[in-house]
Amino acid sequence: MSAHFDLSKEEMKSYGYKIVDLIADHWDSIGDKKPVIRATRKEMDSVFLQEAPNEGTPAEEVLDFVMDNVIPNSTVISHPKAFSFVPGPSNYISTMADSLATGFNIFSGGWMVSPAAAELEIVTMNWLLKMYNFPVAQGGGIFTSGGSMANLTALVTARRIKCGDDFSKAVIYLSDQAHSSNIKAIRVLGFKKEQIRVLPTDLEFRISMNKLKNAIAKDRLEGLQPFCFIASAGTTNTGTVDPLHEIADVCEEEDLWMHVDGAYGGAAILSDKGAKALRGIERADSLTVDPHKWFFQPYEIGCLLVKDKTWLSGTFSEKPEYLRDIEGNESEINFYDYGIQLTRRFRALKFYMSIKTYGLDTFRKAVSYNIDLADRVEKVLRKSRNWEIISPATLAVINFRYNPLGLNLTEKEIDVLNQKISEKIMESGDAFLVTTVLNKQVVLRMCLINPKTTFEHIEETFLQCNAYAEEILKQ
Amino acid sequence: MSAHFDLSKEEMKSYGYKIVDLIADHWDSIGDKKPVIRATRKEMDSVFLQEAPNEGTPAEEVLDFVMDNVIPNSTVISHPKAFSFVPGPSNYISTMADSLATGFNIFSGGWMVSPAAAELEIVTMNWLLKMYNFPVAQGGGIFTSGGSMANLTALVTARRIKCGDDFSKAVIYLSDQAHSSNIKAIRVLGFKKEQIRVLPTDLEFRISMNKLKNAIAKDRLEGLQPFCFIASAGTTNTGTVDPLHEIADVCEEEDLWMHVDGAYGGAAILSDKGAKALRGIERADSLTVDPHKWFFQPYEIGCLLVKDKTWLSGTFSEKPEYLRDIEGNESEINFYDYGIQLTRRFRALKFYMSIKTYGLDTFRKAVSYNIDLADRVEKVLRKSRNWEIISPATLAVINFRYNPLGLNLTEKEIDVLNQKISEKIMESGDAFLVTTVLNKQVVLRMCLINPKTTFEHIEETFLQCNAYAEEILKQ
Ligand SMILES: Cc1ncc(COP(=O)(O)O)c(C=O)c1O
Ligand SMILES: Cc1ncc(COP(=O)(O)O)c(C=O)c1O
Repeated sequence: MSAHFDLSKEEMKSYGYKIVDLIADHWDSIGDKKPVIRATRKEMDSVFLQEAPNEGTPAEEVLDFVMDNVIPNSTVISHPKAFSFVPGPSNYISTMADSLATGFNIFSGGWMVSPAAAELEIVTMNWLLKMYNFPVAQGGGIFTSGGSMANLTALVTARRIKCGDDFSKAVIYLSDQAHSSNIKAIRVLGFKKEQIRVLPTDLEFRISMNKLKNAIAKDRLEGLQPFCFIASAGTTNTGTVDPLHEIADVCEEEDLWMHVDGAYGGAAILSDKGAKALRGIERADSLTVDPHKWFFQPYEIGCLLVKDKTWLSGTFSEKPEYLRDIEGNESEINFYDYGIQLTRRFRALKFYMSIKTYGLDTFRKAVSYNIDLADRVEKVLRKSRNWEIISPATLAVINFRYNPLGLNLTEKEIDVLNQKISEKIMESGDAFLVTTVLNKQVVLRMCLINPKTTFEHIEETFLQCNAYAEEILKQ
Repeated sequence: MSAHFDLSKEEMKSYGYKIVDLIADHWDSIGDKKPVIRATRKEMDSVFLQEAPNEGTPAEEVLDFVMDNVIPNSTVISHPKAFSFVPGPSNYISTMADSLATGFNIFSGGWMVSPAAAELEIVTMNWLLKMYNFPVAQGGGIFTSGGSMANLTALVTARRIKCGDDFSKAVIYLSDQAHSSNIKAIRVLGFKKEQIRVLPTDLEFRISMNKLKNAIAKDRLEGLQPFCFIASAGTTNTGTVDPLHEIADVCEEEDLWMHVDGAYGGAAILSDKGAKALRGIERADSLTVDPHKWFFQPYEIGCLLVKDKTWLSGTFSEKPEYLRDIEGNESEINFYDYGIQLTRRFRALKFYMSIKTYGLDTFRKAVSYNIDLADRVEKVLRKSRNWEIISPATLAVINFRYNPLGLNLTEKEIDVLNQKISEKIMESGDAFLVTTVLNKQVVLRMCLINPKTTFEHIEETFLQCNAYAEEILKQ
């Protein structure tokens, strides 16, 4: 009477095959589905709300219920017409690699427990360090649950290195286009609102260097301690890259930590256009990239890279007694000493297996394809009488709005019109296309990092948008 | 030229089946393997170190390489003889449920994107709230990457509620047996060392209430602001539960936040003995439990429960512009507003599917079995002439050491002897059994939360330990 959860080998296999079939069929037919679903809390409650059952239910029955009710009530974020937020294109090899890691429940906290897991994190981290021209021997990094945790981990490190224990006078800078996860992290770290400078961006959504320099000078005059700038390498809104070399110069002069949030745009380094846009990224002290975005990995895997790995171990190492037998030499890295998590999934495995299987060239091609596709969309829109570009194609993001020549709509009317177009499209379920706000204008935004997205998918969506727009204008 | 990563349906299926076979075979034969492996950095480098390949390699070839080199170099943490740290017994249904979540790459950040994922997190959170007698309507919670992040999330919330923006005078209390992740979180939050009181425990490894009261009184006298106590409900070292009712009384009187770290022991609520040991847990303001430990879930899934869900949303909500279309009514919870992560895996699915499939009764039986097994080990050890109990079986953890009657070894000699026994066992690879330190004594520790562990597994290990001990003593 011990193995309470055990299934026979045959049961395990047939259940597992069924799940593989469901996943493979989904991947095979993903374009035929509708990406968008909508459901209210009330609707969901009526399907799912129940007490925890004391007795079990046959495994296949539970699975069927999930397939009938859970999956259809979830956005298909890997759909070629999922254009909004940051899509999650993923890839099949990584999906299965992740299943393997889960199946063997590999603990990736310490070297002693899983040397191979630690080693693969080291090896893949080296790949990334090299990709960004960070020093491989001295540099280091860690996989995290995502970009939010990578940014938080970076800022804890920056604070310790630059301020030590007393950060009461420290000031941190970022642009109004920096991702909200940075502000969240800063608040978690215990900085007061007065210690955060959110600086306005220029017309191209870049940090304005003069504003940054002035802010630093003013703070110094007031006896405060400017200690960190968070640069964006690919803002979520527009894909804009802050002027990294100029920022690095200021950070050097002013002894500021330079953190680059490349959660969205970092992967663009794989393409020629992207590498050009990201020039200067190698000068960062710390860099967030987010493989579950544009490195095509399934959730979750974020990543933080730093110029000196002892910055991480010096910040996060706390050894409890029951871990005392875990020692070994320093090169045998315990990744729980590099970040906040103690227990950690084996995130490196999917990154490793997908790059080994497809080869980096496949990733390069995909990223280049994405960037070129957005460029092509921009060209087409520029030619049209109905559409106005609000922010040009930049690292596969493009913002635009419906504003037909000759109609002379007010700003307010254009906002409402575009909001309605988005609502109609979302209602149809055919494409996931929502709005964002740029310079106080409501605009439509496409983030085209899914290699499955073809120009035809986009054309179809624009045709639909045009039709809706005419319909709305007629009312 | 778009679908760069695509495999045919047949390729996906055969690759997926192969992985299912590997997992099912592993689960079926897990007891026949050796749990322990050891490898140096040098050895691992010689196998894995390489540049990122530009060209791909056939998927099956990469998989074979991983099976030959990665899996065998990872501890089998679900092995019935993996006794150390906190084992990860996991269960097969959850493993496959997790694969399903990955396969469909379901984004569990916001209601709008995945209503079903948010709903299942709400439903399973209700199950947990009820289990711990937390108010279901007012209460709430969030799944996290693990206990470390749950503790951190709790402490950020506690700080905001009790101290607002200025925590310069705040003081936080915990015992010397509290888990190191709490200290790590406190440091991440920006508290100085002087703001942390690590209080000694009594002979049973419980916080000493007098010491706590005195410390609070002293800090108040000095004009400081005692604001939070972190109680342990199941310390990692000994399974000890702090006196929760007495702590709750003090926290009420003194207006302290009561956080209970039940990452290790929380699941014991499922058994009668455990529920008794955990009395008073319902009085916590916040409670960490950690499903990837004793709720038998694969990595990663931790959980934080709070008495009032608006405490979380009030602390973590930061809405960026490109998420502005995600609104809806308040009951449609966006879990990115409840914690640090924006992008989140669909962790709730495995918890939900495993409880639906096996039924809560199966979990209850397993937890009771684990606790009873440790009690039985204690009884047997108490009868032996060779073994001394250092900390009695408590919530399935037991600490003991080899100290044969009549040998009159010094403390130092006993320490060395037990350390050597552990080294020999680890060298044999037959059982994962390492030491910890209690009252400055080196002891062996078993954490028996794997339902696959039988009494025979333990007997075998003790026989082996006895033999090694005699061998060592002869030298
Ligand atoms: C620029 C940027 N930084 C950080 C994040 C947060 O990353 P994650 O969602 O993985 O936490 C995002 C997410 O979209 C982002 O675009
Ligand atoms: C009592 C306690 N709290 C917190 C943690 C940290 O949990 P995790 O490893 O999931 O981060 C542990 C891990 O063993 C623990 O035992």
